[in-house]
Amino acid sequence: MPSTSQNSPFEFRVALAGLGTVGQGVVRLLQEEGPRYRERFGIDLQLVSILDRSYQQKDTSWISSSVTWTESLEDFLGTPSDIVVELIGGMDPADQIIRTGLEQGKSVVTANKLVMARCGTEYLKLAARKNSYLGFEASVAGGIPIIRLVSHSIFPDRVSQVRGILNGTCNFILSEMADGGRDYQDALTQAQSLGYAEVDPALDVSGGDARDKLAILSTLCFHTGIGPDEIPTRGITELVPVDFLYARKLDSTIKLLGVAARKGENLCLRVSPFLIDNQLPLSKISGVLNAVEVTGATVGSVLISGKGAGEGPTAVSVMADILNAARWKRDTSGAQVAPGMECGSESGQFDQMVSCGEDERYPFYVRFIVKDRPGITATLTHILAEREINIDLVLQERWSDRSNLPFVITVEPTLYSSMQEAVAEMKKLDFNRVEPFALPMLKE
Amino acid sequence: MPSTSQNSPFEFRVALAGLGTVGQGVVRLLQEEGPRYRERFGIDLQLVSILDRSYQQKDTSWISSSVTWTESLEDFLGTPSDIVVELIGGMDPADQIIRTGLEQGKSVVTANKLVMARCGTEYLKLAARKNSYLGFEASVAGGIPIIRLVSHSIFPDRVSQVRGILNGTCNFILSEMADGGRDYQDALTQAQSLGYAEVDPALDVSGGDARDKLAILSTLCFHTGIGPDEIPTRGITELVPVDFLYARKLDSTIKLLGVAARKGENLCLRVSPFLIDNQLPLSKISGVLNAVEVTGATVGSVLISGKGAGEGPTAVSVMADILNAARWKRDTSGAQVAPGMECGSESGQFDQMVSCGEDERYPFYVRFIVKDRPGITATLTHILAEREINIDLVLQERWSDRSNLPFVITVEPTLYSSMQEAVAEMKKLDFNRVEPFALPMLKE
Repeated sequence: MPSTSQNSPFEFRVALAGLGTVGQGVVRLLQEEGPRYRERFGIDLQLVSILDRSYQQKDTSWISSSVTWTESLEDFLGTPSDIVVELIGGMDPADQIIRTGLEQGKSVVTANKLVMARCGTEYLKLAARKNSYLGFEASVAGGIPIIRLVSHSIFPDRVSQVRGILNGTCNFILSEMADGGRDYQDALTQAQSLGYAEVDPALDVSGGDARDKLAILSTLCFHTGIGPDEIPTRGITELVPVDFLYARKLDSTIKLLGVAARKGENLCLRVSPFLIDNQLPLSKISGVLNAVEVTGATVGSVLISGKGAGEGPTAVSVMADILNAARWKRDTSGAQVAPGMECGSESGQFDQMVSCGEDERYPFYVRFIVKDRPGITATLTHILAEREINIDLVLQERWSDRSNLPFVITVEPTLYSSMQEAVAEMKKLDFNRVEPFALPMLKE
Repeated sequence: MPSTSQNSPFEFRVALAGLGTVGQGVVRLLQEEGPRYRERFGIDLQLVSILDRSYQQKDTSWISSSVTWTESLEDFLGTPSDIVVELIGGMDPADQIIRTGLEQGKSVVTANKLVMARCGTEYLKLAARKNSYLGFEASVAGGIPIIRLVSHSIFPDRVSQVRGILNGTCNFILSEMADGGRDYQDALTQAQSLGYAEVDPALDVSGGDARDKLAILSTLCFHTGIGPDEIPTRGITELVPVDFLYARKLDSTIKLLGVAARKGENLCLRVSPFLIDNQLPLSKISGVLNAVEVTGATVGSVLISGKGAGEGPTAVSVMADILNAARWKRDTSGAQVAPGMECGSESGQFDQMVSCGEDERYPFYVRFIVKDRPGITATLTHILAEREINIDLVLQERWSDRSNLPFVITVEPTLYSSMQEAVAEMKKLDFNRVEPFALPMLKE
């Protein structure tokens, strides 16, 4: 028997920009679960308007007839509502919608990682000034509530590190290359045919999408304004099947990670494929799943995983923000409040942080594919020795084709920049058939 | 450079009951991080009083001299404060402290699973009536913020299932038995020597502790009042080393799980060791870690793992509740609010739900240790056939001792009650050396 709220429900008018996949998921949830939200939480969500440039080409017959439809940004921005939900994506007009909503003192919810990574700290400052609620749970890792976990659960602790599998497309491709022995192009085609990769996959496979999400997470976790362009980023396109063979030999798995780690006053940021020891929980996150691991000085490591994209999971995160905004609005109406509850910064101010240079050390995996001849190992090890890089292992599996011979050198923890210099030197050598390729390793 | 809040900080007076491990962790966080909370969140936590029956035997020199110490419950309850933090554990006087705090209109935070499992719905109703904030994040799975995940992130969705590894002591013992080949008593002794198990481990190894936590989680996820006594519970003491041998053969791992699953209008609840397929993420949670997996109709499965106990992790969860209570109090002061934000029920009312009978089906693993003789398999398979239980596999590893011969039968999904009846029948047979033992299996 459902319970009923003693008070009359709190009306909350929702204006929605963008009726794509996620937008449709949000409308579906609102229509199907609205009665439950009313009874259970005392909140009556009213969908009042939808902005969509091509709504006339879409089937909208299933959507409540009380909605006002518009193709005009101006009309949409002028419609009275309590919350604006921005699900268009991209910079424009998303940026304008978010700013205008906040300026008008409305609550704003967005799933847009692009604008949040670039303008998030400005939005947070604006929200703080205008006493508005800004929710962006769905902008990072879809259905995984990592924003709330960081801003409401782990925030009493000092976060020392956050790292995660933030792009489902890349994780699917890497899982296919690892388990199915496919090469990169095959795995990408497979991802595209299943709808897990765009026709133009550049933003995903270049690491750009993961980089934007890492910028948002770092801003929250370290209370510092990090622009995506400040994050060194490398995608997954250089990986070849033999890398997965050697990864297995090293009892490891290759994953594209976003990593942000505090080292003293510095913050080391990086998006790159990593070779992850199979004892580490992140190595087990396969296919299109995402996962984020947050480490605090006192709480230790907390790992959360789930679906990082898709209509349903993302819509649930958007709806959680809408309902929390409604609760917040209802419970604080009339009161003078210090806003920015979601921001990690109640004052809307952020630290400057020096980004990492001398402090970023990893063990490395370096893969070579060469035309075999005497002296190769001597040449390579000399380049490493010159930079005081210690070799850990030299691995060479049986291989019949001596003119395309793969082998691997792993080295002990080394400054990232030293390793880059060494690899740049190694790339000049004439015995290479494919450019030498270095991956940082995670062991602990 | 730390940011400073524009407004003067919001003072929030904390009264703490119980200076055990977690209590000391909370005081430590408060003293070490208090300046950061003030600057960052604009909240000034003032520790005003501590109740502890044996504080005079403890080293309290490191604790701020402005604290008022007392051994008297009456004095403590009469001390003015904004929040009461109950970290004593057990029923009395914890129950009285929580009720009195809520009655006085104070915020209340507790880490006490025992009282929350038994009286949680009453506390939530009281909190709703008195407009008080009740936080109990630390009562389930220590440093893992599962309460907030359910009540603030996944709540827009319909939860269909929650299952988890909720007891670190059992998980450590089972991990030792699996990886180290130890028997139960050895593994328990090891856990005790490392401080992972109590001198009297009964509450943990019987499944009672996991049962209490499952009661709290089910109440939140399914909005229904579930008492711990309604949950069928079985501990880990009957497991023998050969079970772990066969688990490996079946590419599975044995874990103590709490499971609550909605089947139509019914709720199937159970605490038991399960044989978990190694493809399932819960199979990878080893040692003292805890993990909870929540499945929603729309969001899919979200898994969260981390440290389920210990001074630091639990203290961070308690502190998150304290700070969120302070934010809530500050932002709503003066406003008429509908409280119970943490409750999953804003109205403080809960459904009745019929618990599961006919709907709970699992595949089963059944282990026998017998004095070998002709006809055993015929007798056992006859008992199964009579109840229309389909055999999946019969497994028997090479074994030299024919008078203590272990083997395993796995069966296809079967009603829990039918399997129990069959095992009761099998226990009567005179060829048993050890009682037959059935474990439900998780494959999907």
